Amino acid sequence: MSLNPQYEEIGKGFVQQYYALFDDPANRASVVNFYSATESFMTFEGHQIQGAPKILEKVQSLSFQKITRVITAVDSQPTFDGGVIINVLGRLKTDEDQPHAYIQTFVLKPVGGSFFVQHDIFRLSLHDV
Amino acid sequence: MSLNPQYEEIGKGFVQQYYALFDDPANRASVVNFYSATESFMTFEGHQIQGAPKILEKVQSLSFQKITRVITAVDSQPTFDGGVIINVLGRLKTDEDQPHAYIQTFVLKPVGGSFFVQHDIFRLSLHDV
Repeated sequence: MSLNPQYEEIGKGFVQQYYALFDDPANRASVVNFYSATESFMTFEGHQIQGAPKILEKVQSLSFQKITRVITAVDSQPTFDGGVIINVLGRLKTDEDQPHAYIQTFVLKPVGGSFFVQHDIFRLSLHDV
Repeated sequence: MSLNPQYEEIGKGFVQQYYALFDDPANRASVVNFYSATESFMTFEGHQIQGAPKILEKVQSLSFQKITRVITAVDSQPTFDGGVIINVLGRLKTDEDQPHAYIQTFVLKPVGGSFFVQHDIFRLSLHDV
């Protein structure tokens, strides 16, 4: 069990790097490289999938092109295997849609001096009122 | 590495049990029993603390009495050590304050047939507009 003391920088750096790719329609599909072929879980609006091939399929099925995103908060904690858990709170606007608040949680798992995304949970903050 | 196939039920059950205690001013402090003396992290509105004694202090410092809470979504995933990661999206209202959306992430770590909360990240969904 070893905590990575750089968890804050890793969390913030990852979020910046991930969204720079995701928000660019020309590079969006390359986020698949952050995931493991078998040991990554994604829950996207309640729909759960596992493994990079299915995650790529999901990412490629998203119908919007342009994303405008504002990050409100990034909260990171070190995990006891040397990884990082990251909670992102933000707002995003896709194409001409209305802006929505959203939450996304990533768990980065260390592997050979780098990390992959083991867990990814995304939800738009839409509430029945 | 073993995934717990009951992760959905565990996630939903934990959330119900945790908030039933937390939302009752007479029992709120007993949520401390879900945390480890040393191996639990809590990030509360960006403020990070570690270990049950400090978590108890934080919980006891909260000034509101009554909480009215509505859960919008609970997204759980199994972790590869047999635990569960849980993302909660909801709205809450403390005393006579306005209702606010919030997010809370828990990571449950298995220990001797039960679980403790290894990671807890809480944020009100407040955005600069």
